[in-house]
Amino acid sequence: MKAEIIATGTELLLGEIVDANSPYLANQLSALGIDLYWISVVGDNPNRLIDSLRRAWERSDLVLTTGGLGPTQGDITRESIASFLGEETSIDPLEERRLRQFFADRKMDMPNSNLRQATKIPSAEFLPNPLGTAPGWWVERDGHILITMPGPPEEMHSVWQREVVPRLRQKLGGVVIISRVLKTFGVSEAKIGELMGGLVQGANPTVATYAKPDGIHLRITAKADSQEEARRMVAGVELQIRSLMVDSIWGVDDDTIASVVGDLLAKRGRTLATMESCTGGLLSATITSVPGSSAYFRGGIVSYSNDVKIAYGVPEELIKRHGAVSQPVAEAMAGTVRRCLGSDIGIGITGVAGPSKLEDKSPGTVFIAVDDGSSPHTLSRVYPGSRQRVRERASVSALFELRKTLVNE
Amino acid sequence: MKAEIIATGTELLLGEIVDANSPYLANQLSALGIDLYWISVVGDNPNRLIDSLRRAWERSDLVLTTGGLGPTQGDITRESIASFLGEETSIDPLEERRLRQFFADRKMDMPNSNLRQATKIPSAEFLPNPLGTAPGWWVERDGHILITMPGPPEEMHSVWQREVVPRLRQKLGGVVIISRVLKTFGVSEAKIGELMGGLVQGANPTVATYAKPDGIHLRITAKADSQEEARRMVAGVELQIRSLMVDSIWGVDDDTIASVVGDLLAKRGRTLATMESCTGGLLSATITSVPGSSAYFRGGIVSYSNDVKIAYGVPEELIKRHGAVSQPVAEAMAGTVRRCLGSDIGIGITGVAGPSKLEDKSPGTVFIAVDDGSSPHTLSRVYPGSRQRVRERASVSALFELRKTLVNE
Repeated sequence: MKAEIIATGTELLLGEIVDANSPYLANQLSALGIDLYWISVVGDNPNRLIDSLRRAWERSDLVLTTGGLGPTQGDITRESIASFLGEETSIDPLEERRLRQFFADRKMDMPNSNLRQATKIPSAEFLPNPLGTAPGWWVERDGHILITMPGPPEEMHSVWQREVVPRLRQKLGGVVIISRVLKTFGVSEAKIGELMGGLVQGANPTVATYAKPDGIHLRITAKADSQEEARRMVAGVELQIRSLMVDSIWGVDDDTIASVVGDLLAKRGRTLATMESCTGGLLSATITSVPGSSAYFRGGIVSYSNDVKIAYGVPEELIKRHGAVSQPVAEAMAGTVRRCLGSDIGIGITGVAGPSKLEDKSPGTVFIAVDDGSSPHTLSRVYPGSRQRVRERASVSALFELRKTLVNE
Repeated sequence: MKAEIIATGTELLLGEIVDANSPYLANQLSALGIDLYWISVVGDNPNRLIDSLRRAWERSDLVLTTGGLGPTQGDITRESIASFLGEETSIDPLEERRLRQFFADRKMDMPNSNLRQATKIPSAEFLPNPLGTAPGWWVERDGHILITMPGPPEEMHSVWQREVVPRLRQKLGGVVIISRVLKTFGVSEAKIGELMGGLVQGANPTVATYAKPDGIHLRITAKADSQEEARRMVAGVELQIRSLMVDSIWGVDDDTIASVVGDLLAKRGRTLATMESCTGGLLSATITSVPGSSAYFRGGIVSYSNDVKIAYGVPEELIKRHGAVSQPVAEAMAGTVRRCLGSDIGIGITGVAGPSKLEDKSPGTVFIAVDDGSSPHTLSRVYPGSRQRVRERASVSALFELRKTLVNE
């Protein structure tokens, strides 16, 4: 089954909104074993949208559209589909009642403009949307399927998962696609390409590399007639890759460096606390993004001013002598928070997030210390990029540094 | 000038990477007054890429491609362009020298596979890429322009800003487009649509609405022969909108709720501190995402365990009586951190980020308190959505709550 996505909305062509729906659907289609060949973005212009729909209908078996189902005049997806298929839209009385109920439940008056959301064409079936006022459409005609879904991501996900996936599974045969991602750190993409050699050229399974903020990811994908066969094929390639890159693989699939470090802490029964300045809480926010992190994360201090650092126990004379952005202060922060919050391990981060210099140190300068009660690990870096980028890199690096400490224990 | 973007990469069709380049370019083109009509995403498949390039070349004056310039076999953009234009690629000796120098500077051996990055076709001109090994191409032929840029966003931005924008400006005539975004909170999109009425139907300036996590945004866009004229047109519409929505507009353009609240704090000479549990540092990370926030943000405590809350001064019996996730504890946290860190205002957040229940309270339950020394403002909500979504909404809501306090002062 050859699939194609059309995301609609002039705001996407103006770059005001990032199209998060297409990547989501791309991922979902891949997991269903459906080949996605094209994604296009079209503005709220009837001629160009109709043109794109017609071409998609000709070259693909399955066309998915997102957006343009709202109540405003810029929402033209319903009418454009009707027009290119040569059908007419009309109000569906049942759907109208549901819509009025939606507003009544919320004690709101229904603006008249919302009534268009209760219309459909004869060959469409509604895809109920419990989170909003715009239901989707499932259109099946002449051997093609067209699925239209609302643009707001939460509504789209709900319609997709509850309504579309079950219907698609029924249509599909028995081909299974399985993927596994191996995540590495500290090796360049070209180097990995050379290490992999022939593996990357295989047609099934395939191996692809992606550069990410947390290192290079390798994705193994196998297509087979059964789950077991696909899994076996992936496992074989994984074994080969692991034998080539022994120490560089830190996680798989949905692992994040925060979840991997969290597992290590939990397994070793160790607790953690953080003291941050330049990252301003981003490190602790990253650590606590993992469900269950309260089992090992005691808490953190964001010391965004020198007197807060000093109040919590960083010696004033250390700041005076070396500056607040220095290795000795990072180490003192790690030790201080370990004692203050009663954790086994403390992490201290101090640096210059930018865009301006601080204490005559360049933006991007960061000192990280990990103190587990023996001698502290430290790391100093000058990260390129924006304030946000520097803060993210510093947080991720601190977690890789912590991982090193835990793995070597 | 009619423009079109082609983003390449099978990883985009598998949903492994979100195409951040197209939204960036879309925004940039809009600011240059260039109309973008299409964005397409194509995989690393020569036939489909060549097909997309050919169609883009036929229907658009300006074609921009991103990605596919790396050293691996999956990188096929150069060869595909050569093929559809009927030209041959060859190694450019000067570029080869630059490339070898890039590796030498980093004390690395150059893998042979990188040599392809020094190739070009006769009608292309290199667009130097100081951050990486893949230069872009500027191709001009038969009245069309094709610009090809590397995929990693930082490299693409650099090539775009340094090399492409100056060349494009030379090509452009005098039309100027100016946009202004007004950001609102607390009013529904349909309600705004009705309030705006005729304004939304105007062809120039245009007014469009977008639903965002921090409220509904209104974008006014005007096209004119001069900056002054375009600005005057935008200002006229802005005045009308402001008269219709007096209290709901909290920011414009690049304002974030963190930057707006930061400005208010700075103007009033007030300082802030935070004590968070469920948001785990996300609130302080959001506050400190603003450059210069150290002027008003003293710091924060992430109290991810009850004994850390108690150690810093939240009364133990309050937690016992009401539970850690409760309004009295949120208020105690706000008051505690205000005193502990010596700030004028304290914010306390406690809640259940999910996915599991806590103290028998549902995921999404959040209590927020803002204490400015008089009686604390409090807010209690049950947010729908994922752990990450709940944490984001709680952080943003806390800032809107703080804004209310500051505006009413």
